[in-house]
Amino acid sequence: MTISKPRGTRDFLPEEMAKRRAVESKLRAVIQKWGYGEVVTPTFEELELFTLKSGQGIIGELYNFTDKGDREMTLRPELTAPVMRAYVNEMQSFSRPIKLFYFENCFRYERPQKGRYREFWQFGAELIGSSKPEADAEVIALAMTMIAAVGIKGDLNIGNLSVLRHLISQITTESAVSDQIMRFIDKKEYENLDAYLSDLSVSADLIDKIHKTVLLSGKDGFAAVAGARAVVGDLPELNAFEKMLTLLSAYGVTDYTVNFGVARGLDYYTGTVFEVYAEGLGAQKQICGGGSYKLISLFGGGDVVSTGFGIGFDRIMEICDIPAEKPETVALITKSETQIDGIEIAGILRSRVIVLTDLMGRNFKAQMEYANTIGANYVLIIGEKELESGLLSLKDMKSGEQVSLNLEDLISKFS
Amino acid sequence: MTISKPRGTRDFLPEEMAKRRAVESKLRAVIQKWGYGEVVTPTFEELELFTLKSGQGIIGELYNFTDKGDREMTLRPELTAPVMRAYVNEMQSFSRPIKLFYFENCFRYERPQKGRYREFWQFGAELIGSSKPEADAEVIALAMTMIAAVGIKGDLNIGNLSVLRHLISQITTESAVSDQIMRFIDKKEYENLDAYLSDLSVSADLIDKIHKTVLLSGKDGFAAVAGARAVVGDLPELNAFEKMLTLLSAYGVTDYTVNFGVARGLDYYTGTVFEVYAEGLGAQKQICGGGSYKLISLFGGGDVVSTGFGIGFDRIMEICDIPAEKPETVALITKSETQIDGIEIAGILRSRVIVLTDLMGRNFKAQMEYANTIGANYVLIIGEKELESGLLSLKDMKSGEQVSLNLEDLISKFS
Repeated sequence: MTISKPRGTRDFLPEEMAKRRAVESKLRAVIQKWGYGEVVTPTFEELELFTLKSGQGIIGELYNFTDKGDREMTLRPELTAPVMRAYVNEMQSFSRPIKLFYFENCFRYERPQKGRYREFWQFGAELIGSSKPEADAEVIALAMTMIAAVGIKGDLNIGNLSVLRHLISQITTESAVSDQIMRFIDKKEYENLDAYLSDLSVSADLIDKIHKTVLLSGKDGFAAVAGARAVVGDLPELNAFEKMLTLLSAYGVTDYTVNFGVARGLDYYTGTVFEVYAEGLGAQKQICGGGSYKLISLFGGGDVVSTGFGIGFDRIMEICDIPAEKPETVALITKSETQIDGIEIAGILRSRVIVLTDLMGRNFKAQMEYANTIGANYVLIIGEKELESGLLSLKDMKSGEQVSLNLEDLISKFS
Repeated sequence: MTISKPRGTRDFLPEEMAKRRAVESKLRAVIQKWGYGEVVTPTFEELELFTLKSGQGIIGELYNFTDKGDREMTLRPELTAPVMRAYVNEMQSFSRPIKLFYFENCFRYERPQKGRYREFWQFGAELIGSSKPEADAEVIALAMTMIAAVGIKGDLNIGNLSVLRHLISQITTESAVSDQIMRFIDKKEYENLDAYLSDLSVSADLIDKIHKTVLLSGKDGFAAVAGARAVVGDLPELNAFEKMLTLLSAYGVTDYTVNFGVARGLDYYTGTVFEVYAEGLGAQKQICGGGSYKLISLFGGGDVVSTGFGIGFDRIMEICDIPAEKPETVALITKSETQIDGIEIAGILRSRVIVLTDLMGRNFKAQMEYANTIGANYVLIIGEKELESGLLSLKDMKSGEQVSLNLEDLISKFS
């Protein structure tokens, strides 16, 4: 009987892991230079953390379970709620802004399909404590810099919820109703939206304004803002959004579409939101999403605004083409009489290069074959003759070239 | 209402994560130079994977759950079984030996206590496909090199199960019985052991041999082997074990205790086993355990021997004293008129050093205070005067020294 990995999950073998670590390390290098510090939270959390954030409806998509102490727990579906929980529990006294990042696995229970896994990885940032356009601009510029660092050209869409929220505030103060309206817009279900608004007896004028806002979109962000002003008047949030666009250009982020119809689902998003798409495997796919939001008060903290994003690491891996670093490998070829010397030489060389010694009691030929199969860059032949003369034979497996070196020269060759 | 992290789990904040990553990176640096490749397996597996390995008794200690497809799953309690499963599923055609490592989180359901967590990290290696003393020696030497690389002096205990197994094979062929005997020995419950053996009508002579074996222990490994030969005669496994000790000294591993009473619980360990202890928080604690074992046939693969170890990363973190790398941080101090220039200068410097810009719309004094609070190494003052002259003021926050530099000099200062 053979046991398989669970449905919708993956085993990552060394070749693929080396690529994933190479990409991870490029993303880390960027975010660390921007002054973000890493956080790691538990893999499972109380179920309530996510139902508070996203409603009971999310339970159907979760890996939730009752633990042996009868507590309702779940494997985390995302990291923003856990990081905000950790802020409320442990970081309220920290100087703000607090700049955090994470690179962790998340879980969702859904029918596995191509490119969608039940265990998947997110690389994200959360900037806690600033409601200024400076914060939104930094977070968008950081996301775009990270995406560019792994060689991906991302299509950036920026929205701002203040215009839609301003219009919806004239319809309802109930978050269930406004969430429903935002959800129709997010999914571009405009007929359902109209029917829903008509049922609420919303005036034709207001429906018209919502439609106009949803369709406000263009590469010239300032023109889109002017269009928004024509619909809703001079909202202060639009001034902040304009300033955010000005700051973005100082970061070199000038190629984007501003779209006031970007709704991003639920109630906790407050202002600027953004999404990044990229071409991969023949389809345009979202690789990053974020924006400013308020969750901390929901979790028992103060009235603190955050802004952040999550990058879908598995999507990035599908699209980007960063090769794994391939450090040089030397396979030592010994016979039983020279095995001890081989282990000692391996110990000397290992601070500089990957060194393999025979672990199978193989003969010369079988050791050479193994070195060849696993793609060793060099073999170092350590026979009795070589040890006597003090000159070891180093063979370059690619060129076939063979040189005789004493230990000192060998060390400096791999320095 | 405030939600807390689940009982027995931890949030790792940036300061602690930086330390953990520094230690992780030292362990990775060693194991990669020995030619081991990283594997990552799913966080949860089918429950059966672990009951097959460790018996139904383990369920009480697991985070197991029934998923929405009615499958019995569990968060992994350890990585050896998952890695062997991945071998059976995906690596049987790879050239042997296969050298793998992992650094992952594991889960156990038990009453949380000081230093014992419900989610904990293991750094481990599995060497698949060699039953030779070379493999055992490499794995022990690798573990000791990793432990030394993080500045810990580990006490190494090496055992070999062949002597006990040889004696037990004269009592029973039932694995439940031999497991029970090994468990008594592992826990040093010698009175229970004697009662159990008497119930099985084991001869006084055999009981005496078991006692002698259990007490065979000493810093001189070869003397201990001679003692074992005096009890059980010239087992071929003892020759291999002696060879393993000879190889170990070539690796520089000469300080250890050989102890033929090391039992390490269950049936799948085959020969050499080892444990490493270290002084930490006032008590001697196990930080590493391993040995050679057979699990692959149990999971539906062939009759393949492996050897490996797991290092308790959280224990290592308690004991070792590796500081986090602290890269230099420059906080830019701007006013609203110079903010755009500040962002552009940040973009230039960020390939070299961590750069922070104001995200709160703070005045000069508040920006300086923030830079001070978060421990920035430098502040770079970018006022209108500075921009006009082309000379920016860089203040060393520790010495208080302030110098005027143009952008070029600034760049070379941080190269």
